[in-house]
Amino acid sequence: MKHSKQKFARLALGVVTAVLGVTLTGTGVAAPKPEDAVKYRQGVLFAMGWNAGAMGAMVKGDVPFDKAQFAFMADRVAALAPMPLEGFTPDSKGAKSHAKPELWDNMDDFKSRMGELVESTKALAAAAQGGDEGAMKTQFGKTVQVCKGCHDEYREKP
Amino acid sequence: MKHSKQKFARLALGVVTAVLGVTLTGTGVAAPKPEDAVKYRQGVLFAMGWNAGAMGAMVKGDVPFDKAQFAFMADRVAALAPMPLEGFTPDSKGAKSHAKPELWDNMDDFKSRMGELVESTKALAAAAQGGDEGAMKTQFGKTVQVCKGCHDEYREKP
Repeated sequence: MKHSKQKFARLALGVVTAVLGVTLTGTGVAAPKPEDAVKYRQGVLFAMGWNAGAMGAMVKGDVPFDKAQFAFMADRVAALAPMPLEGFTPDSKGAKSHAKPELWDNMDDFKSRMGELVESTKALAAAAQGGDEGAMKTQFGKTVQVCKGCHDEYREKP
Repeated sequence: MKHSKQKFARLALGVVTAVLGVTLTGTGVAAPKPEDAVKYRQGVLFAMGWNAGAMGAMVKGDVPFDKAQFAFMADRVAALAPMPLEGFTPDSKGAKSHAKPELWDNMDDFKSRMGELVESTKALAAAAQGGDEGAMKTQFGKTVQVCKGCHDEYREKP
C-alpha cells in the first residue's frame, strides 16, 4: 500500500512541471527562481487589484453598490493579502520588477506594512459582513491608503 | 459624519486606479476588460503553481519533506482554488491566452472541473493538517491530476 502510494505520487510528479508552468530549481523551496517570485507576487497583487478595482467602482458610484458582491470581493482580497510577501524573496532583489531595491533594505518595515494590509483587509471583510454600506466604504478607503502608503515607499512610479 | 465618510471614500477612490494598476471600465464589475480578466486568472493560477511546484519538489524528494511548509502551501492552494473561475468572463473568450475557445462552449463542464479542484485542494489542506506524509503525497497526486485533466481539455499546448 505504501509502495503504491509512493508510485502514484511519483507518477503525478512527472506532470507537475509541465502542468503548472513553474520551473523547479534544484534547491526547490529554498530558492525559487527570482523571475518566478516576481511573477508570483505580481499575480497575487494583480488579483487583489482586480477585486479592489471592482469594489472601488461601487464605492465611487460608477456601478450600483451591491453589498453581497462587495462582501464577496472583500473576502477575496482578505484571502490574498497574506500572500504577496512570500514573493519578495531575497534573491529577487535584483530581478526586473517595480519594486525598489530599498524594499529589501527595509524588510522589517515592509513586513510591518504587509501585516497592516492583512489586518486592514480583515477589517474590510468584517465590515462587509456587518452590512453597513458607510462602514464598508470607510474601511475600503482605509485599506486603499495602506496599499498607497507601501507603493509610495517601495514601488517605482510607473 | 456621514458626509465626512463619503468624502473620505471619494478621496481614497481618487487613487484606486493609480494604486492598483487596474483600469476600471465604465460599466465596472459587469464587464471587466478581457485582458484584465486574463491577467487576473493567469496571476491566480501562477500563484497556485508556485505553491504546488514547491510542494511537488518535496513529494519528488528534490528537497526534504517539510510537513509544516507543505501544510502552509496546501492552505495557500486551497485559498486560491476558488478564484480562477471568476477570470473566465464571457468577454474574455477571444482574448489572447492559453485557454481554448471550447472552454466557453462547455462552461458547465469547466465549472464542474473547477469545483472538483476546489474540493480536491480542500482535501489536500485537510490531509496536510492530518500530518500523515503518505496521505499528503497521495492527495497531492490526485490534485495534480485534476489540474492536468482540465489543462488537457481546455488549455492550448504551450
